[in-house]
Amino acid sequence: MIITLHKSADPAPLLAFLQEEGICFEQRGHALLLPAELPVDAAALRRFAAVDAVIAGDEPCLLVSRSAHEEDSVVRFGSAAVGGGAFALMAGPCSVESEEQLLTVAKAVKAAGATVLRGGAYKPRTSPYAFQGLRQEGLRLLSLAKAETGLPLCSEVMGVRELEYFDDIDILQIGARNMQNYDLLREAARTRKPILLKRGPAATVREWLLSAEYILAGGNEQVILCERGVRGFDSATRYTFDLSAIPLARELTHLPVIADPSHATGLASLVPAASLAAAAAGADGLLIEVHNDPLHARSDALQALSCEEFAALAPRIERVRQAARP
Amino acid sequence: MIITLHKSADPAPLLAFLQEEGICFEQRGHALLLPAELPVDAAALRRFAAVDAVIAGDEPCLLVSRSAHEEDSVVRFGSAAVGGGAFALMAGPCSVESEEQLLTVAKAVKAAGATVLRGGAYKPRTSPYAFQGLRQEGLRLLSLAKAETGLPLCSEVMGVRELEYFDDIDILQIGARNMQNYDLLREAARTRKPILLKRGPAATVREWLLSAEYILAGGNEQVILCERGVRGFDSATRYTFDLSAIPLARELTHLPVIADPSHATGLASLVPAASLAAAAAGADGLLIEVHNDPLHARSDALQALSCEEFAALAPRIERVRQAARP
Amino acid sequence: MIITLHKSADPAPLLAFLQEEGICFEQRGHALLLPAELPVDAAALRRFAAVDAVIAGDEPCLLVSRSAHEEDSVVRFGSAAVGGGAFALMAGPCSVESEEQLLTVAKAVKAAGATVLRGGAYKPRTSPYAFQGLRQEGLRLLSLAKAETGLPLCSEVMGVRELEYFDDIDILQIGARNMQNYDLLREAARTRKPILLKRGPAATVREWLLSAEYILAGGNEQVILCERGVRGFDSATRYTFDLSAIPLARELTHLPVIADPSHATGLASLVPAASLAAAAAGADGLLIEVHNDPLHARSDALQALSCEEFAALAPRIERVRQAARP
Amino acid sequence: MIITLHKSADPAPLLAFLQEEGICFEQRGHALLLPAELPVDAAALRRFAAVDAVIAGDEPCLLVSRSAHEEDSVVRFGSAAVGGGAFALMAGPCSVESEEQLLTVAKAVKAAGATVLRGGAYKPRTSPYAFQGLRQEGLRLLSLAKAETGLPLCSEVMGVRELEYFDDIDILQIGARNMQNYDLLREAARTRKPILLKRGPAATVREWLLSAEYILAGGNEQVILCERGVRGFDSATRYTFDLSAIPLARELTHLPVIADPSHATGLASLVPAASLAAAAAGADGLLIEVHNDPLHARSDALQALSCEEFAALAPRIERVRQAARP
Repeated sequence: MIITLHKSADPAPLLAFLQEEGICFEQRGHALLLPAELPVDAAALRRFAAVDAVIAGDEPCLLVSRSAHEEDSVVRFGSAAVGGGAFALMAGPCSVESEEQLLTVAKAVKAAGATVLRGGAYKPRTSPYAFQGLRQEGLRLLSLAKAETGLPLCSEVMGVRELEYFDDIDILQIGARNMQNYDLLREAARTRKPILLKRGPAATVREWLLSAEYILAGGNEQVILCERGVRGFDSATRYTFDLSAIPLARELTHLPVIADPSHATGLASLVPAASLAAAAAGADGLLIEVHNDPLHARSDALQALSCEEFAALAPRIERVRQAARP
Repeated sequence: MIITLHKSADPAPLLAFLQEEGICFEQRGHALLLPAELPVDAAALRRFAAVDAVIAGDEPCLLVSRSAHEEDSVVRFGSAAVGGGAFALMAGPCSVESEEQLLTVAKAVKAAGATVLRGGAYKPRTSPYAFQGLRQEGLRLLSLAKAETGLPLCSEVMGVRELEYFDDIDILQIGARNMQNYDLLREAARTRKPILLKRGPAATVREWLLSAEYILAGGNEQVILCERGVRGFDSATRYTFDLSAIPLARELTHLPVIADPSHATGLASLVPAASLAAAAAGADGLLIEVHNDPLHARSDALQALSCEEFAALAPRIERVRQAARP
Repeated sequence: MIITLHKSADPAPLLAFLQEEGICFEQRGHALLLPAELPVDAAALRRFAAVDAVIAGDEPCLLVSRSAHEEDSVVRFGSAAVGGGAFALMAGPCSVESEEQLLTVAKAVKAAGATVLRGGAYKPRTSPYAFQGLRQEGLRLLSLAKAETGLPLCSEVMGVRELEYFDDIDILQIGARNMQNYDLLREAARTRKPILLKRGPAATVREWLLSAEYILAGGNEQVILCERGVRGFDSATRYTFDLSAIPLARELTHLPVIADPSHATGLASLVPAASLAAAAAGADGLLIEVHNDPLHARSDALQALSCEEFAALAPRIERVRQAARP
Repeated sequence: MIITLHKSADPAPLLAFLQEEGICFEQRGHALLLPAELPVDAAALRRFAAVDAVIAGDEPCLLVSRSAHEEDSVVRFGSAAVGGGAFALMAGPCSVESEEQLLTVAKAVKAAGATVLRGGAYKPRTSPYAFQGLRQEGLRLLSLAKAETGLPLCSEVMGVRELEYFDDIDILQIGARNMQNYDLLREAARTRKPILLKRGPAATVREWLLSAEYILAGGNEQVILCERGVRGFDSATRYTFDLSAIPLARELTHLPVIADPSHATGLASLVPAASLAAAAAGADGLLIEVHNDPLHARSDALQALSCEEFAALAPRIERVRQAARP
């Protein structure tokens, strides 16, 4: 560990403290060299006026780090996969609303090339008075759609006590609001199912990776990271789509990284451009909201693509992916 | 409901849609007047190019709104209270670390005028490898400190399955990471205990109030709101202390609003100024981290005040509160 | 104009005020219909407690609006152009450092397909002690590079009194720090040269368009908008690249919209992905920093591509552009 | 200088580069010790994969730093001053609108205890079609108000060519939009008048101080810093008032630091709480918008206090200042 010192402040109180604590150090100009392990929290040393910076050196090596696992990880579910060259096109309605709605959308997105059906049964809503999802009935309809189309399923789980109902769900989604709900992260890890972990709207990339680390440390390496927009200052879009986070995360981790352009922009008219951008930037997949009748959707009506819009977009995504290769 | 139209776009598709849906409307220049209740989600109408804005009129009246309950609500715990003129000075260590540490701090903050002892037993940590708190043992030590000092207790609960251990805790804290953990909000509401709800770092004031509404809608009106900093772009402070949110929230709701200057700034040297500012701005209380030996704290060492610093600050807070009155 | 009223507040003071001011109005449930033009600033009416929202209807139609000019505008400079299907690939060093450096880079980017040479002569630097650019000498070297390669030039102007030296510069860049330097916007407009207007790091898309409006209102329609990242909370990248702002701006305005992935990300390793993403999202061009020896660059060394990296990237950009077409 | 290395990456390319450049270094575990001055930009070394962090040690000592000048600086204008215990209460209308308006407000704020009259003659407006101020006529009216009341004047200058008209203005305000308009900073410095430098809405505290450094490096030490809110994500307030920036800036610099609660909040109802908070947090002054008839103000009507509201607030500010003292 290294501590750099301000030129203008008296280092005596710091040096006295180090001696009291029995910490060996060596002074080199305006730097102090210390052992890697200290008996106090290194950050606490910044309380001394003379301390400019505390450089801890490398963090303990994380399981999520690219340096811990150089090759891309591949996450598999049913017949499909994501990562290591496999691209996952996940599509479906924000909320499961009815059998007819879900089957119509499921068949349409499958025909257009989707590899996973996404659909919300348990819905996190800002207001307690908004539609909260069909819950167990929604999960039943998803199973039905899986039986009908063969598409693996992705659906959000909001609490540890609902996990028991998700047996037939292939990918457990942990939503942006729950990215740091550690109890849920730990329990979801135990299911040994693939987990799609959305980035929180105020989370740095590093914090997002550390939430994934909770899952890997729990013995489950099947994690898919999903960028879905961060909180920004321009209310013209629902969130600010942090495109650069995709290649940045792919540098830092071996886990697959996908994007959710529907939540990131909140506007159907921007979803195609954002989807193509993510594909060009190297995303391993996309999560896109599609509804058979967006004007009558029970949630997120503004951001859903119609089945026809999705069918027109899917081949462009594939063309851009191919074109972007080095 | 009112829809305003763009001057430059053709309204025909919108008007046709409204007729198909059997929605009565009346056109006034560039505005359409519609009934308050529509068979479609009003937001969806913004998908039509001709629609400039959709004005839904008042939201359904919320239980948290000042308009639903004009007088300040008072939340009581043990011998103390917050709101309606009662000021709560909550202080104590970030983490409960040992009996000696906790009792030392508890006695010191009580002597300085604190009305509540705060201390973390279950600690939400960004990294799975950081100290996670003493957990049940921490709660036991808190009970002991309560018996010793008579101070009511405030401690964070992170998951629904831990709630059973919080019987002796007077105020359940729901942390910033869990502000939209609806499962936890609902279960905590059921305990009928006072709940201190921290604002999420990316939450608007309105979203924060809607999370409180989950608790009130669950039959528990004992909610204390706590501003603790929002995510900002300047890493010189840990968060950006959103001071204006205090008077703004007090305009919008009857619930007590307090501030946590320790997390908001992340730097002990800024905590006194931020505490005094909150008191001057009308906060109903403060939540301040105090440690008997900040340099050896096991978490948040940079932001804790020493017992002596807290003792010097407490009377200044009281003087400012009095001076700020109209 | 329409005013919506809160259900819970007394409208009498507002109604009395409107009568005093001689403003005709008609009440419809919780809405007041008013004339489009008022003798007071409509926003001021929000001071009355009964007022929920003031809906002004369409803004005065802006010259930058897509509704004022449906077709894409094309901005021409020398033999090249941007907008309406023409893609501008602008490349070159952050700072002009020497004749050798500039000519080496200019020839390299031309060979790789660049259509414009960018290079900074006057450099805005956060610190007064950082290298401020070669200034007039830098402009002389740019002219030399133009003579040698035939590439039109883009360079930043920072003050009205320097404009006289920019005769040979084809595109005047107004930097992010000066997006709301209205004096400079007005004077630059007067030159009748094409102006590349960077978005300020805290500017909404609407504010950016209104700054462009200053130039159009000054009689100059040759404006190119450039997204270059907004201020975000994650210091892992220099700024947050607001990818969605590209398709959003292209919906709202007829002006060409390009992206600067070098400043937006600040990291050379992310520039290729961000460039491809912008091309896929419909950007009309790119502005990329290229240096013959990035490790010895005098400014922004971390974000410049080497000439070889740029040469490898350029054909991928073109392929993605083609692939992204509907 | 110190470079820390990643444990997992090969340092050979870095070491080879340092040798080629003739840079001496000494390796200590995962750290390299280098000379303070290098022939390359130290930041550029982060391009090597093995480099974790580059620690430059102390920046060159800045003139604005507290370490360069331990005592508070005092800035004087006419009979008044700010800094070193002197509190400046600056008040007046956003825009100078008429002789009657200005004199009415000037007399009222003087009677209430203001020490400086603020008023905008040249107005920076987001839209080119908004009222741009009375300009030279506005300055003439300010002079008149100064003659009448004896109050020193503060008014915003937006361009270098207007400076010649500001002879009778005591404090030149440089607005948030121009915080990094270096041409204006340099020219304003030359006038040797006190300069009130507002923080840009996306500027870190460090960037704000570096803009002030441009003025001090230009030979003018009469700088007053003004926090006026940063861009935030919650549109409920106009900006996010960054209260902590006040004590933080006061730690880092010897220059006086004041606050502008009117722009920071944008809502008159929040201005009293924000003003009191700033005073409690140690601000050296306040800049408050006051209008004799806010409902008819030509700009910023929502945020101005009436003369009566200001008169009620001023004594509370003074009481809180006294109460907050240690």
